[in-house]
Amino acid sequence: MTAKSVAILGSTGSIGTQALDVVRANTSLFSISILSAGNNVDLLIKQCIEFKPRFAIIGNKDKFSSLKEGLKNEDIQLLAGVDGICEALVSVKSDIVLTALVGYAGLKPTLTAIDQGITIALANKETLVVAGELVTARAQEKNVAIIPVDSEHSAIFQCLVGEDHNPIEKVILTASGGPFRGKKREELLEVTKAQALKHPNWSMGAKITIDSASLMNKGLEVIEAKWLFDVDDHQIDVIVHPQSIIHSLVQFEDGSMKAQMGLPDMKLPIQYALGYPNRLPSDFERFNFMDYPTLTFETPDKDTFVNLQLAYNALKQKGNAACILNAANEIAVERFLKDEIKFLEIAELNSYCMENYQYIASPSYEDYVATDTQVRELAKNWTTK
Amino acid sequence: MTAKSVAILGSTGSIGTQALDVVRANTSLFSISILSAGNNVDLLIKQCIEFKPRFAIIGNKDKFSSLKEGLKNEDIQLLAGVDGICEALVSVKSDIVLTALVGYAGLKPTLTAIDQGITIALANKETLVVAGELVTARAQEKNVAIIPVDSEHSAIFQCLVGEDHNPIEKVILTASGGPFRGKKREELLEVTKAQALKHPNWSMGAKITIDSASLMNKGLEVIEAKWLFDVDDHQIDVIVHPQSIIHSLVQFEDGSMKAQMGLPDMKLPIQYALGYPNRLPSDFERFNFMDYPTLTFETPDKDTFVNLQLAYNALKQKGNAACILNAANEIAVERFLKDEIKFLEIAELNSYCMENYQYIASPSYEDYVATDTQVRELAKNWTTK
Repeated sequence: MTAKSVAILGSTGSIGTQALDVVRANTSLFSISILSAGNNVDLLIKQCIEFKPRFAIIGNKDKFSSLKEGLKNEDIQLLAGVDGICEALVSVKSDIVLTALVGYAGLKPTLTAIDQGITIALANKETLVVAGELVTARAQEKNVAIIPVDSEHSAIFQCLVGEDHNPIEKVILTASGGPFRGKKREELLEVTKAQALKHPNWSMGAKITIDSASLMNKGLEVIEAKWLFDVDDHQIDVIVHPQSIIHSLVQFEDGSMKAQMGLPDMKLPIQYALGYPNRLPSDFERFNFMDYPTLTFETPDKDTFVNLQLAYNALKQKGNAACILNAANEIAVERFLKDEIKFLEIAELNSYCMENYQYIASPSYEDYVATDTQVRELAKNWTTK
Repeated sequence: MTAKSVAILGSTGSIGTQALDVVRANTSLFSISILSAGNNVDLLIKQCIEFKPRFAIIGNKDKFSSLKEGLKNEDIQLLAGVDGICEALVSVKSDIVLTALVGYAGLKPTLTAIDQGITIALANKETLVVAGELVTARAQEKNVAIIPVDSEHSAIFQCLVGEDHNPIEKVILTASGGPFRGKKREELLEVTKAQALKHPNWSMGAKITIDSASLMNKGLEVIEAKWLFDVDDHQIDVIVHPQSIIHSLVQFEDGSMKAQMGLPDMKLPIQYALGYPNRLPSDFERFNFMDYPTLTFETPDKDTFVNLQLAYNALKQKGNAACILNAANEIAVERFLKDEIKFLEIAELNSYCMENYQYIASPSYEDYVATDTQVRELAKNWTTK
């Protein structure tokens, strides 16, 4: 078996560095074609020296000269910005691309990779949230597989292996509930950034951790599930499962359910996506029921965590509704992390944008771009009444 | 798609009648080739009039004349005894045979069906317990699929669909724990037949219900799992899960686990086996987490429920050890149901037979038959010290 050639977009983030751990542990199976990072040029340089990609791209063009300086002794082609990523994807053969960029920035590279016929290991859920219809249609047309990396969607994907001919009745996404599980609105009025950034089970980047606290992350996952598994909103349930051991479930038309389980460790779905269809032996810590003798389940509180309801609404509305929600939320989280707005105002800002931006029933790629740009402006200017 | 032709051995028992419910609900998918029953001639006659098999067989030869009388107006060939079953299997084409006979009696018909190239829906675990090596080797040689019907093994089988190329690290069988879960030896000294027959979750025949109470059933399942999934004894775990919602699990070499779940209803694994690889739509009641907000897990108490330990010992010893254990246990349960021995004496009788009957490392078919016959005699004559 020749080694799979892997492009990692967002290599210095939480998913990216763990993916490189997987590659490091399986050097006979994987080689690195492309590494890209948004801002962390120092780590990107270190990774490039170790993994010797054909291309390295820094998102922030201001840091391009540092990248050049740091890699002057390496035979690596250097580029900058999203266009640089796309150029690299076209120029070097990759078998699989891990899209671990943050937010909407993942859309264009993902579409480029699909056009090149490269298998997508999707860690950038915003791509499907913003433009799921466009992306999945393109992938189908080009016969490109999209393998999810999100633990929940990886769980469902794993449960569906070998079941292609059996229709899905329902998918059930589990949610840890985040740091504010069980809290009511009045208790969340004054929560701090530090509290919101403290996830009970998963160690992740700042954006997704805030989204987990506000249940926006689960909402985005509901939308992602719709596109990945071709199910309708009434076929997607969310159940709060604080221990994060059952990563998600599928129910088939016979009533049987399949679940994928294990300790919460992102390395597993990352490795699964890179190795698929083969499961690679790992030394990841094994789950033991005696460490978790009780698994519990609750219904999510959509009245307190309004974002989850907004996501279902966006899914029902279709068109550019999810794109509006995602753009609003990216700015809302940014503003919360800058202490410009309070925690509960994230959902208020999101609601405001969904109500006030123009709905487009059948958006083109350009419509998505315009929606994203303009909603961000709207969101930046939103102020508490 | 032409209808699958189904032979049901043991059609009047709990599994058999539920299988006929499945067939009745899917008449365009299934037709009945053979029905056989041990003793319940009245129900067999009724079933034959409804399902019009080509052959009907009554196990108890004394009831053959009643069968003849009851079906004199039907164009159905009638036979008696295990040899009758085998004759029918050879004479009429069946696509799949559901082996739902009780105990060791299932071995010969199963081997006959394999020789005919008929897919086995295995509900008679004793067949694999007694002669797993022989049966699985024969099935492999004839390229015959064995699809388990036991809920636990069906769960594992369902989790393994599409994973043929991925080695199993471990299978984990769940056990309800039965009616005596949590009880210690001194509390079990005087338990009655009625108490032992009262299973908390599953409605099943008397033999398997007693085996569930003594954990012998789980022990037999451990042995069954070894043969069905080609795993060693150290790769088979048992975990007590009183709610019987997770029906069993597989752990792969990457550390990922897959579980099959649902309400405890034998119809689902029966239908799955008959319909495989297709899942047939059903109106079986759906599982809802809100009805089971807490799932719990415990280690099994092998000191109190000695039978489970005996099964692991038999698995380690190989040869005819499991055949000895099974024959002893069939008699022990029979004697317990006749009030000849007490509940805890089931395991004592089993231990006695395993220690006192001759071990054969590489038994032939004839050795299995001799072991079975002679251990039954030994077990019938055993008396409390």
